[in-house]
Amino acid sequence: MKSISFELSFQVEFYDVDSMGVVYHGNYPKYFDMARSHLLDKIGYGYKAMERDGFAFPVITMDIKYIKPLYFGDVATIKVCLVEFRDYLAFKYEVRNASGQITTKGSTKQVAVKWATMETQYESPATLVGLVEKYEEGC
Amino acid sequence: MKSISFELSFQVEFYDVDSMGVVYHGNYPKYFDMARSHLLDKIGYGYKAMERDGFAFPVITMDIKYIKPLYFGDVATIKVCLVEFRDYLAFKYEVRNASGQITTKGSTKQVAVKWATMETQYESPATLVGLVEKYEEGC
Amino acid sequence: MKSISFELSFQVEFYDVDSMGVVYHGNYPKYFDMARSHLLDKIGYGYKAMERDGFAFPVITMDIKYIKPLYFGDVATIKVCLVEFRDYLAFKYEVRNASGQITTKGSTKQVAVKWATMETQYESPATLVGLVEKYEEGC
Amino acid sequence: MKSISFELSFQVEFYDVDSMGVVYHGNYPKYFDMARSHLLDKIGYGYKAMERDGFAFPVITMDIKYIKPLYFGDVATIKVCLVEFRDYLAFKYEVRNASGQITTKGSTKQVAVKWATMETQYESPATLVGLVEKYEEGC
Repeated sequence: MKSISFELSFQVEFYDVDSMGVVYHGNYPKYFDMARSHLLDKIGYGYKAMERDGFAFPVITMDIKYIKPLYFGDVATIKVCLVEFRDYLAFKYEVRNASGQITTKGSTKQVAVKWATMETQYESPATLVGLVEKYEEGC
Repeated sequence: MKSISFELSFQVEFYDVDSMGVVYHGNYPKYFDMARSHLLDKIGYGYKAMERDGFAFPVITMDIKYIKPLYFGDVATIKVCLVEFRDYLAFKYEVRNASGQITTKGSTKQVAVKWATMETQYESPATLVGLVEKYEEGC
Repeated sequence: MKSISFELSFQVEFYDVDSMGVVYHGNYPKYFDMARSHLLDKIGYGYKAMERDGFAFPVITMDIKYIKPLYFGDVATIKVCLVEFRDYLAFKYEVRNASGQITTKGSTKQVAVKWATMETQYESPATLVGLVEKYEEGC
Repeated sequence: MKSISFELSFQVEFYDVDSMGVVYHGNYPKYFDMARSHLLDKIGYGYKAMERDGFAFPVITMDIKYIKPLYFGDVATIKVCLVEFRDYLAFKYEVRNASGQITTKGSTKQVAVKWATMETQYESPATLVGLVEKYEEGC
């Protein structure tokens, strides 16, 4: 199955951390979003390209598994992998701490919605499919 | 099965909304947290009581299903239901718009961790179980 | 000088608090925004009315003085006062804890920008001035 | 007057942007915090070192001047300059867009508070003063 990945590192800032001293569980959707956005840019179909193409891609499901905490000052990495793209966009995420341990896993699904009519599309726009098809790389 | 619920309404503020004009999908964990926190207060085992009792309850899984958007200015309601409490805490959430339509569903699980040793507990603290047992009410 | 106020109470949620156990200083702009938005709604010139009238009102200055902390679970009140409206919108804010002590003060200014041309306006839209003029009340 | 600076670049993410399509004004305190935190780490007196030294440094004033907007996807730079350190910590901030135009300016002040007694200190801890004195560099 075709798949494309992107990995980036980020530093845990003071405002990411809750009063337990760990990254607030509700901040991981932002890390996922950041990573996904960079992967889509790499593919050539980032949020702005989507919009120019006449589509929005609202998130319809998200699930997160919290395994270990991240602390203020930690330099972590997040790897995102596009695992489905023909009918909808599905991504998987893995966050690792500086020791390489997986701290958090997650997945999201997004469907294309046509701006002009606000209708949900049951297959991905042709432009997107074409761009993904060109990739050889896997996750 | 014993269950306890809490419902509160909230207004969608400007800063909750993204550039698509709808509540940012990554903000729902905060709505869930707000509702859960109020339910735990009602039971008498809110975050401060947990701490006094020597426990933290980190979230270990969260899943969200986004059905309809909420818009700036919407007055929405969120209902949270405690569905499991003996071995871990499990909550279910339903967000509804002003027309009563379900816009978002979700669930979370939390386990007790003993502050003194940072050990995960495989059953809930006796205080919590006792407080929940007293309730007759269901969801 | 004509002025109009609005006061609302809010509860400090877990996600508002930083690892020092107090409301993160960077969250007060959201409290100010919430209060200002409700005051503008009361006047009849909320963000949606602004937009229908063809204007946006970007914030151009903000200053905050932090006097005392707010803690998780605190029920606080915020009072916002419109202090200037003819040439630009200026608001003053006071946050008080449950004991009535002022914890935070602030002020913001906003100018009208015409959506159609994106030009800054050096006086407020007539609709807004008319709505404010009708008020007898002071702060 | 002795001063030390730090500059870092950041990308404007989707969740930083409001429904007007520009960075939400209330998010700049986080950019300031990120920059200040990195500058303090460079000096050798980051938030963790402060804590080990027995002090917290709450922000007591913040002011922001918004000159131009930043948009989703923009790569911006933020320069922070330590301008006072003997009696309290004062920082100045400048955010620039990719064209080098200043988009936002700000300043913050922080005082040392001794954890043990929660007493405000009217001069900075000796460790901090010593570390800053070593720097030749200006802003």
